[in-house]
Amino acid sequence: METVRTISDMKLLRQRLAEPVGFVPTMGFLHEGHLSLIRRARSENRHVIVSIFVNPTQFGPEEDFDSYPRDTERDLTLLKQEKADVVFMPEPEKIYPPGACTWVEVEGLTEMLEGISRPGHFRGVATVVTKLFNIIEPTYAYFGQKDAQQARVIRKMAEDLFMNLEIIVCPTIREPDGLAMSSRNFYLKGKERKAALILYKSLQLAQSLWNRGERHAGKIRGEIVSLIESEPLARIGYVSVADTETLQEIEEEIEYEALLSMAVKVGKPRLLDSIVLSGSA
Amino acid sequence: METVRTISDMKLLRQRLAEPVGFVPTMGFLHEGHLSLIRRARSENRHVIVSIFVNPTQFGPEEDFDSYPRDTERDLTLLKQEKADVVFMPEPEKIYPPGACTWVEVEGLTEMLEGISRPGHFRGVATVVTKLFNIIEPTYAYFGQKDAQQARVIRKMAEDLFMNLEIIVCPTIREPDGLAMSSRNFYLKGKERKAALILYKSLQLAQSLWNRGERHAGKIRGEIVSLIESEPLARIGYVSVADTETLQEIEEEIEYEALLSMAVKVGKPRLLDSIVLSGSA
Repeated sequence: METVRTISDMKLLRQRLAEPVGFVPTMGFLHEGHLSLIRRARSENRHVIVSIFVNPTQFGPEEDFDSYPRDTERDLTLLKQEKADVVFMPEPEKIYPPGACTWVEVEGLTEMLEGISRPGHFRGVATVVTKLFNIIEPTYAYFGQKDAQQARVIRKMAEDLFMNLEIIVCPTIREPDGLAMSSRNFYLKGKERKAALILYKSLQLAQSLWNRGERHAGKIRGEIVSLIESEPLARIGYVSVADTETLQEIEEEIEYEALLSMAVKVGKPRLLDSIVLSGSA
Repeated sequence: METVRTISDMKLLRQRLAEPVGFVPTMGFLHEGHLSLIRRARSENRHVIVSIFVNPTQFGPEEDFDSYPRDTERDLTLLKQEKADVVFMPEPEKIYPPGACTWVEVEGLTEMLEGISRPGHFRGVATVVTKLFNIIEPTYAYFGQKDAQQARVIRKMAEDLFMNLEIIVCPTIREPDGLAMSSRNFYLKGKERKAALILYKSLQLAQSLWNRGERHAGKIRGEIVSLIESEPLARIGYVSVADTETLQEIEEEIEYEALLSMAVKVGKPRLLDSIVLSGSA
């Protein structure tokens, strides 16, 4: 496994790699969710490149950039085990040199859900992903469904800009009790860990309502909100039942399918989870 | 010479072309300025691709998108003479399909000069150029120095986003009497054509001031403004003496070099011209 720290070295190395090249961008502090993306990439590509880059521009001024959990040594051990070929770990000053002023914006899609409480977040995500895509030139790039809006934004960006790669969105990986894997689970203290299960329970509730034939978005949303509110340690950011393509909120009947997504604060971390409700009952 | 109208055909054709591939993006209605870019590309590449696309998103609501001069038949004849290999002429609805919502923004650099009177102009330019670059994947892309700010913005964008190509900026081509070639010269009526020479004359004045050792930006700007104001058919948009990299206006002494640029309305068209003042007297 090669560790590459400069953009020029990465571009040079890339020229030696035969297609297809799979790319998994991460912010490090790897968990089973990341590893599942890497395994998928490993199974579909000749070469697998993983980036570890805690992207400053996707954090708001009040957010946890400085305290975001990092453990590079452990990450590298895991990546070696998963047989990644290359780990790309650029310095922030190389990705954003002084005077860098170009941004990629995905309008509309980024203004709801996470975009409301995190203005500029998706601009940071779209910009860093564009930079990484241009440096790595992957054939396939892998993202988790857990960050459903992020996955949708990146797909849309790649499509709108005619980027020469395919975005692969992979299922959410969960702890045995159902909690979606996330680097930010690390922040959960004491009773919060158990309280955080309320997200998964609410997805299960939504799925069972759907299976019983419930199609009214407002009804489903209402039931979920009530359930989460029953957990004293949980504070709802949003509960959304939205169109899977446009992310526009659905108010009445769901016609074909819907993305149920939520942000819920449990102690320090703001946790995300989501499920696509689709298919017949 | 192949004429390609769809993005998928263009991407397919591109895969058959060996490096280096030179690309000249145009809005058609070709003149000697464009042809000089194409000749340069022809001399430096195995394959030359020219796009003709009047990009709607770089025109403001009050601007001349609908009336922008077009003559595809003549353009194709010229391109055949210059031995372009491929002409890419996509439909606007394919470059901007319904729901397309991703934009590339170059901040700072785009907020002065043209950016002041044409808000959104450079966002449209940067976005369409990014789309075309992703479709064409050129080794080299050629732009004219005449639109000095545009050239700077595109260079900056390519650099900031780590795009895998090189931007080549080529000298302004002029009519025998000095008027910079531009598709919009077509709008000049009667006496306006001669009055338009005031731009070139002011560049000459600036150069001669520079050669005589004048280094005070305000002084040079003042002389130019007076000269242009002496032409009754000319209305100044701006006259700028700025840093060639940041495009920040210089107020005092020019240290090393400066970009003198101007926008001047003569009759209907708003004409641009520019010169880099550099080197010793």
